[in-house]
Amino acid sequence: MDRERDDLTVTEMKFDSDGLVPAIVQQHDTGEILMLAYMNADSLQKTLETRRTWFWSRSRKKYWMKGEESGNVQEVFEVRYDCDADTLLVRVNQVGAGACHTGERTCFYRTLPLAPESADGAEMPLS
Amino acid sequence: MDRERDDLTVTEMKFDSDGLVPAIVQQHDTGEILMLAYMNADSLQKTLETRRTWFWSRSRKKYWMKGEESGNVQEVFEVRYDCDADTLLVRVNQVGAGACHTGERTCFYRTLPLAPESADGAEMPLS
Repeated sequence: MDRERDDLTVTEMKFDSDGLVPAIVQQHDTGEILMLAYMNADSLQKTLETRRTWFWSRSRKKYWMKGEESGNVQEVFEVRYDCDADTLLVRVNQVGAGACHTGERTCFYRTLPLAPESADGAEMPLS
Repeated sequence: MDRERDDLTVTEMKFDSDGLVPAIVQQHDTGEILMLAYMNADSLQKTLETRRTWFWSRSRKKYWMKGEESGNVQEVFEVRYDCDADTLLVRVNQVGAGACHTGERTCFYRTLPLAPESADGAEMPLS
């Protein structure tokens, strides 16, 4: 088992070629997944320092704090990172109505249809 | 509110320039985040058809099914997608000891230190 070091710093995270890592945002008490957005080293550092979620907008090329316009900020309880140090899990309390710009509580309000389970529990053949 | 269409198909997901979207994998009953990996259209289709999680390995340039070697497969209960249709949330039952190759239950077993809360609850100044 190649368990990794437990004491990485922000700059030791494995940012991609654009300097970003995906950050999953989870409501800390219910486990609900609210959204996913991208952080660079500076926005991660700001998140740790301010206990509010800061992201880098890939489309607008700027920093943004969740809730800076709506007031629906995210109070940060914990920032976790994964075994590869290339993904963040930010556990928060979502203030206000919700996280999604559509007005939904979470961005993940839609589903894709699964194939029906076969009667005998057998898996579908793979192509 | 620009709520989006509710009936997107696999090929309408907004895959990135490498043909990928991040897929958050969550234990369906506890809400625990197990891992994040990447799917392309084919691995997403396989996931929907087989009710097992299939990913595209960016480093090995091949498909892999979670648990194909360890037996620790993920039974898929639901596949959600976000408002931008560029991220997946796959709700599963993790079979066996855990999801992480290190032997941990989840890949997110480490934390980054948060700044201490100030005594008066004021936010830290931003740079």
